[in-house]
Amino acid sequence: MEPWRTAIVNKDETHIWLRGYDITQLMSRASFASVLFLLHKNRLPTDGEERLFNALLIASADHGSGAPSCATARLAASGNRESLSAAVAAGILAIGDVHGGAGALTMDAIEVIVRGAKTAGGRISDAAIRFVDRAKEFGQRVPGFGHRVHTTDPRVSVLFQMAKDAGIAGAGVETVLALDAALKLRKTDIPINIDGALAAILYDLGFPPSAGKLIFIAGRVAGLTAEVAEEHEREKPMRIRIPITYDGAPPRDL
Amino acid sequence: MEPWRTAIVNKDETHIWLRGYDITQLMSRASFASVLFLLHKNRLPTDGEERLFNALLIASADHGSGAPSCATARLAASGNRESLSAAVAAGILAIGDVHGGAGALTMDAIEVIVRGAKTAGGRISDAAIRFVDRAKEFGQRVPGFGHRVHTTDPRVSVLFQMAKDAGIAGAGVETVLALDAALKLRKTDIPINIDGALAAILYDLGFPPSAGKLIFIAGRVAGLTAEVAEEHEREKPMRIRIPITYDGAPPRDL
Amino acid sequence: MEPWRTAIVNKDETHIWLRGYDITQLMSRASFASVLFLLHKNRLPTDGEERLFNALLIASADHGSGAPSCATARLAASGNRESLSAAVAAGILAIGDVHGGAGALTMDAIEVIVRGAKTAGGRISDAAIRFVDRAKEFGQRVPGFGHRVHTTDPRVSVLFQMAKDAGIAGAGVETVLALDAALKLRKTDIPINIDGALAAILYDLGFPPSAGKLIFIAGRVAGLTAEVAEEHEREKPMRIRIPITYDGAPPRDL
Amino acid sequence: MEPWRTAIVNKDETHIWLRGYDITQLMSRASFASVLFLLHKNRLPTDGEERLFNALLIASADHGSGAPSCATARLAASGNRESLSAAVAAGILAIGDVHGGAGALTMDAIEVIVRGAKTAGGRISDAAIRFVDRAKEFGQRVPGFGHRVHTTDPRVSVLFQMAKDAGIAGAGVETVLALDAALKLRKTDIPINIDGALAAILYDLGFPPSAGKLIFIAGRVAGLTAEVAEEHEREKPMRIRIPITYDGAPPRDL
Repeated sequence: MEPWRTAIVNKDETHIWLRGYDITQLMSRASFASVLFLLHKNRLPTDGEERLFNALLIASADHGSGAPSCATARLAASGNRESLSAAVAAGILAIGDVHGGAGALTMDAIEVIVRGAKTAGGRISDAAIRFVDRAKEFGQRVPGFGHRVHTTDPRVSVLFQMAKDAGIAGAGVETVLALDAALKLRKTDIPINIDGALAAILYDLGFPPSAGKLIFIAGRVAGLTAEVAEEHEREKPMRIRIPITYDGAPPRDL
Repeated sequence: MEPWRTAIVNKDETHIWLRGYDITQLMSRASFASVLFLLHKNRLPTDGEERLFNALLIASADHGSGAPSCATARLAASGNRESLSAAVAAGILAIGDVHGGAGALTMDAIEVIVRGAKTAGGRISDAAIRFVDRAKEFGQRVPGFGHRVHTTDPRVSVLFQMAKDAGIAGAGVETVLALDAALKLRKTDIPINIDGALAAILYDLGFPPSAGKLIFIAGRVAGLTAEVAEEHEREKPMRIRIPITYDGAPPRDL
Repeated sequence: MEPWRTAIVNKDETHIWLRGYDITQLMSRASFASVLFLLHKNRLPTDGEERLFNALLIASADHGSGAPSCATARLAASGNRESLSAAVAAGILAIGDVHGGAGALTMDAIEVIVRGAKTAGGRISDAAIRFVDRAKEFGQRVPGFGHRVHTTDPRVSVLFQMAKDAGIAGAGVETVLALDAALKLRKTDIPINIDGALAAILYDLGFPPSAGKLIFIAGRVAGLTAEVAEEHEREKPMRIRIPITYDGAPPRDL
Repeated sequence: MEPWRTAIVNKDETHIWLRGYDITQLMSRASFASVLFLLHKNRLPTDGEERLFNALLIASADHGSGAPSCATARLAASGNRESLSAAVAAGILAIGDVHGGAGALTMDAIEVIVRGAKTAGGRISDAAIRFVDRAKEFGQRVPGFGHRVHTTDPRVSVLFQMAKDAGIAGAGVETVLALDAALKLRKTDIPINIDGALAAILYDLGFPPSAGKLIFIAGRVAGLTAEVAEEHEREKPMRIRIPITYDGAPPRDL
């Protein structure tokens, strides 16, 4: 078999290097969040970037036992007591475009709008209005907006303020705020959600759209491990009973 | 359905609290590693604990594309391009007692030895010798020792030194070092591995054995997300070809 | 890399052989259930074995949307719309010793009892009583008995009758019936469950204990694929809301 | 919580009905393959359909330990010995649009071509040529064609012949054969692959595109369970070593 190529980890009998940095130096002096940043970006973050990246991971960490990823992990833990890996993995499998993964779609939308503004030689705010109008015309959702629990997601404004204070807010934050203004202009009052805020900031930190899902997963795993631990500590196996209504074919003979 | 009970996250329309702390305060002032600590331990770490916990997560983050968890994630990403969640989850599923999960077994062993020493009114070093002798008698492995790549795992001594410097090293570190001495005394020269070091320190930080796996998973996810991102960026779908030798039944007729 | 060894599939540019049989012959003349049998046992089943094996897979296929494996698959499908593989895999991850996987434990118990009877030169019925008494003494469950929905599981007697009719019922069925009698003798009236019946019959078909889980999984996947398809067809994304009660730390300041 | 709706399984204390049929009747008289058909289609298959559906599942069952799904399952089993569910699930996670899942894309293509032919009042063969030309123009692959091992996939002609013999071959088989002819006309000689054949037949059996993945998964699980069992029986934990070449950043200081 051809060797696999990688630019992430190198090692010998007595060393491990992550992106070229000796792991013992990273362990002594770096934070876990900056190593995650390093693994993805091939450079360590500045202080401001590190602060913001920590905030973003904390914002993704957990959103309650009933969030689809957490509930899926707990349900798997309820039936499969012997594998902690299995329960955490099940939780991750519930993360997709509609849950936690909308960041990737929003980053795609940001890219489209920023490029659209450039091509038209115009402003992001105008491109955002065109984007919203086209979405409405075709009955599509604007990614990064709307939440089933929060009227105002408390995480969003904190993230945007931190991004501004650190001088990191750029076209990503501008575009999401422009979409927010465009939606209000068109009388659609739905709040920016955490996926939208994450996408804006990951964009301004220079991450590609796939990071919208991958970084969310890295953050959410913190909560998933705690949810699974709690299920094991506090609950009996098989405790979860889902109420079911059957509305299918009546009894029939073979 | 009965409501599910949880002591982890609470929220209302405009707030989210993790273990009682407002998530916006955590985002502004805490690190991601300390929030992971908080989610599991219901309290924030001290500065020394936070430093050590970061080191432990970095030590777990990645160990090369060929480590079973990383290779499994890349293989899944090679066949399934459309789901990043699926590839990361597949990587986690390769984590078990023999890969990454040995921390849990080692923590069980630490508990047995510490209790054994107490019951016998003796010293941990003597209990560790009895443990090693019994393992040898029954042909069992001593968990937390031995590695297929490293003769000396560079991560171990750094972790132990940091634990001592921070005044956190206790019965966990003492027991793993006692096992190391007992193995040498019995002419078995196999090094402490990262699972053993992780277990010692998680024990001294007051985590239960299950954390041996769960915290390793939370750390390894950092690497898995980077490995999956690299597979998508650098490689074509279906590029992996495993060489196979067939040694089963010869052609036969139905 | 050393080539991997396998005795399952061989192929060249124009042929595929499963356990030595040309796949086109199997496709033309065999049933899917007998190919599953072949893949595990390296021989095709007799007519009686095939009939029984089909029954056993049908018995495992689905047990309602609220069964942990099915509910986990639907929950994952609710959050992750873009990956059918992810939802089915999540369902499988909920299968463990307490759900669907008890067959493996029961097969271990059968083995212990059959061997115990042989060693003692006695009867399986006596060994079963000793097994039940010891389980009671240590507060352990007898694997393969008890169900949270059914007072009498309708699948059990059908399987046992079919096994007898086909002349396949042996020490496996005898042992599980002996455990049933021993439990009644000790005034514990809990029914044989599907895991117990599966285990008895897999044992009599010559499968190893691990098959208790693997064959159940192969059967249950039928139901999981249908449950996931129904979730996609009938329900909106994110429709599942789990009621939660928070009983953790009150609001506190950082 | 609102009860979940389902039309698949109903049960009471002593009965289980799958799509209205008593499970004990199905166990006594039906095959596993026809129950899988029933769960998806809400009716039992005719004899011809059952025969063809069995062939289709057998065709999907296994394609060698090196197929991405099988290799992923074995790699997960190599690191995680304690969870059979985890290893099988990992294998399923490797199934996507480029491996095993192309059936869904092909079914979409069939639908487009059949509709295109109807709208134009023309023949499927002409619509297939237009489809191939457009794919070439935009540099896109024609789904359901091409394989990295087989020059002629032995499973394809058997499936098509069986479909014709049973009188089931319809617009699905016609379209895939028309695409084959169109590719040859345009001097592109790549064979119909198993995904293409599966898609044609599932289409003619009246399944929706998602079945292209789900039915393949249900078939492949047979092989995955056997591959995982073989890994446990024949191989030591952690035996798999992937050769790696590092081509990233050189050693650098923090």
